[in-house]
Amino acid sequence: MELTTIREIFKKREEYLDKKVTVGGWVRSIRDSKTFGFIVLNDGSYFNPLQVVYHDKMDNFAEVSKLNVGAAVIVTGTLVATPQAKQPFEIQADEVLIEGASAPDYPLQKKRHTFEYLRTISHLRPRTNTFQAVFRVRSLAAYAIHRFFQERGFVYVHTPLITGSDCEGAGEMFRVTTLDMENVPKNEDGTVDYTKDFFGKETSLTVSGQLNGETYAQAFRSIYTFGPTFRAENSNTTRHAAEFWMIEPEIAFADLEDDMDLAEAMLKYIINYVLENAPEEMNFFNSFVDKGLLERLHNVANSDFARVTYTEAVEILEKNNDKFEYKVSWGCDLQTEHERYLTEEIYKRPVFVTDYPKEIKAFYMKQNDDGKTVAAVDCLVPGIGEIIGGSQREDDYDKLLSRMRELGLKEEDYGFYLDLRKYGSTRHAGFGLGFERCVMYLTGMSNIRDVIPFPRTVNNCEL
Amino acid sequence: MELTTIREIFKKREEYLDKKVTVGGWVRSIRDSKTFGFIVLNDGSYFNPLQVVYHDKMDNFAEVSKLNVGAAVIVTGTLVATPQAKQPFEIQADEVLIEGASAPDYPLQKKRHTFEYLRTISHLRPRTNTFQAVFRVRSLAAYAIHRFFQERGFVYVHTPLITGSDCEGAGEMFRVTTLDMENVPKNEDGTVDYTKDFFGKETSLTVSGQLNGETYAQAFRSIYTFGPTFRAENSNTTRHAAEFWMIEPEIAFADLEDDMDLAEAMLKYIINYVLENAPEEMNFFNSFVDKGLLERLHNVANSDFARVTYTEAVEILEKNNDKFEYKVSWGCDLQTEHERYLTEEIYKRPVFVTDYPKEIKAFYMKQNDDGKTVAAVDCLVPGIGEIIGGSQREDDYDKLLSRMRELGLKEEDYGFYLDLRKYGSTRHAGFGLGFERCVMYLTGMSNIRDVIPFPRTVNNCEL
Repeated sequence: MELTTIREIFKKREEYLDKKVTVGGWVRSIRDSKTFGFIVLNDGSYFNPLQVVYHDKMDNFAEVSKLNVGAAVIVTGTLVATPQAKQPFEIQADEVLIEGASAPDYPLQKKRHTFEYLRTISHLRPRTNTFQAVFRVRSLAAYAIHRFFQERGFVYVHTPLITGSDCEGAGEMFRVTTLDMENVPKNEDGTVDYTKDFFGKETSLTVSGQLNGETYAQAFRSIYTFGPTFRAENSNTTRHAAEFWMIEPEIAFADLEDDMDLAEAMLKYIINYVLENAPEEMNFFNSFVDKGLLERLHNVANSDFARVTYTEAVEILEKNNDKFEYKVSWGCDLQTEHERYLTEEIYKRPVFVTDYPKEIKAFYMKQNDDGKTVAAVDCLVPGIGEIIGGSQREDDYDKLLSRMRELGLKEEDYGFYLDLRKYGSTRHAGFGLGFERCVMYLTGMSNIRDVIPFPRTVNNCEL
Repeated sequence: MELTTIREIFKKREEYLDKKVTVGGWVRSIRDSKTFGFIVLNDGSYFNPLQVVYHDKMDNFAEVSKLNVGAAVIVTGTLVATPQAKQPFEIQADEVLIEGASAPDYPLQKKRHTFEYLRTISHLRPRTNTFQAVFRVRSLAAYAIHRFFQERGFVYVHTPLITGSDCEGAGEMFRVTTLDMENVPKNEDGTVDYTKDFFGKETSLTVSGQLNGETYAQAFRSIYTFGPTFRAENSNTTRHAAEFWMIEPEIAFADLEDDMDLAEAMLKYIINYVLENAPEEMNFFNSFVDKGLLERLHNVANSDFARVTYTEAVEILEKNNDKFEYKVSWGCDLQTEHERYLTEEIYKRPVFVTDYPKEIKAFYMKQNDDGKTVAAVDCLVPGIGEIIGGSQREDDYDKLLSRMRELGLKEEDYGFYLDLRKYGSTRHAGFGLGFERCVMYLTGMSNIRDVIPFPRTVNNCEL
């Protein structure tokens, strides 16, 4: 069908004013007097709706006037300027075709609904202002990430979802199986006979694509992943989902400084892209969801991120231990309260914390010369805390192997990973950005369930 | 590190000629005489390698000369034109720093390896010409798809991977569970007690995001998904993988014609984008993998796709039944041999076949007025057969419900889907493009295992 989008009308209004247009969309509200009526129409292409005026000269005037919120209509008419009104223009309709009525029990009435209620109708909530804004920003942010990396020559790698390895216990995993659950085949000793499973072995859903990604960085130099990851953690918080998307760039011939430069440039790029391409949505969030949002994002986009070592950060935090529930001392992992204190109170801008104690970080991180710390980095941002975690990777075969042995990792599971240190090893680094946390940060939404179209959490897998 | 990429040197050669540059990369081949040597260097940024000449004036001349294929080096020197040679320029090195040596048993020697062998070293194969080309094209094609839809205002929707529904038996599914496989909890009747599972119910990996996608199309009008999908089919062919990526656009206020227009524009866009952005890789495929590739792709990019109904297609095919293993008659599903005959022999270009018998298509497809067919469409392309399958969706509540009942579907599982027909239903359509099949089509590679970084197939889940 040849329809003009409401976005196009708003963006190129001069071209359409006083011309005939046909738009299709859904009724956000409708009211009528005896001889004419108003429809507020949204077509999903643009945050702001378009006002339609229709008259009793139309044969189906009565039928249209009886339409309910949510009905789909196709309107043909003339776009006219309305200098006296709130909205800049409206359509004077010649014709309103009813594409699909909306039953009287339509769950989205004009009143304001709670986010909790809207979560129970995840198939309809994108029709509300808030979720239309959230999921357009989510889409734009995803695209901004692809653009950022592709413009820089990074190769997008689809690392596998189903995996036979456990990426060093980065989290609880979901099992993937085709075995008959009612009659699980067993070995003589009572253990499960996974040779009968689809892949002939035990398999799970991935918790990270990093190790696979590294193999491609050693071929393409700069790569990124952007795909779903899974955690079967039994935690019912506003920040954890069982299924979420992650971005994991990996760069060869690069150290921790390069890694931070990349992360900083990426975050600024995403923010700027969303501010430029969704100004209406971002204003909406700033007005109705999170008052300080725009100021905070502009601040981040325009400031140099601070950089501090873990050891320095701990010194600063220790002086403020009276403010924290968990007291800080060297060796402890930083809690969200500490992270937010650093970025919000001390630096008042994003901060990279580097060189953490090796005991609290993963086996693959590059060991520093002090024998105590590794070249890890977390990026902390105001309002959230940690948004990015990364590291320079251990590129020395012997050091990596001895650390793996210290931690009791099975060498045979990591042969491919050790190979990377055996055949043309390079200093290299990477990081992970949790995409949902990024969208929460961009929108000010405070519950991860409200930035995922169909969220999966403990005991919740609807639709 | 401040390195110049080989891509940049090739693309902006005038800027770099006779200047000092520093590049980092991996040795593809190396040979030396007594006083100087040559390194062919690839840094993953560009298909063509760069030649490096080094001399015995360097302190580590002997050490460099002993390097093996695969070693990582950082070279600083002057870029000089070589008008007499095959390559346009080379680096006269002042310094060759060894970043990481390559052990003598490096599996990729200069000789040609079979694809079968390379599949056993999926962590190293992207370092070969063929796989460097395949996975760069894969990355570019993915980005082209995002660009195509984003430029047209489509919203990218992340539909869920873990699902409690089965999308009407579109294929065998993988179960997702956190139950203890050695001691599966049971109900009194011996069935599995899924209330104890992570989500409190039976869950699987998705086979399609379409039904979820439709809910967003009824809010945003034009959406697309691009994510992994799974089939637990026990089929060991060159065209099937257990884990693959799909693109599923869905458009509201659109019929089957609009759907075909979109599919045709998308395929042409992808082809043109890849031809423009990976000319070296595409020439390589055309020379070494599939001789007719470029001609075929140019033909597709420049021809109008044919459109024919299933009924017409069957009439054509019936006349040629002597050529087919499976004889064609009205009502049968078309096999690859029939599809390829239509597109390669009859039309000699891509062809859309529409309006299939309803018995061989899914419940959600729009019923045509003839009572026999549905508004389905398959897009067939030369060399492959079906590359896209789509349909206009049934938007009439009563017709959809009665078809669901005919097929014995559980109404309670599809409440959300019926809601879309109850509250502002619109004519709408969509299609699915299997991404791997698309990459095979673009590259001429004939085994799906060779276009997926880490393929998952029956009994195969390595790395």
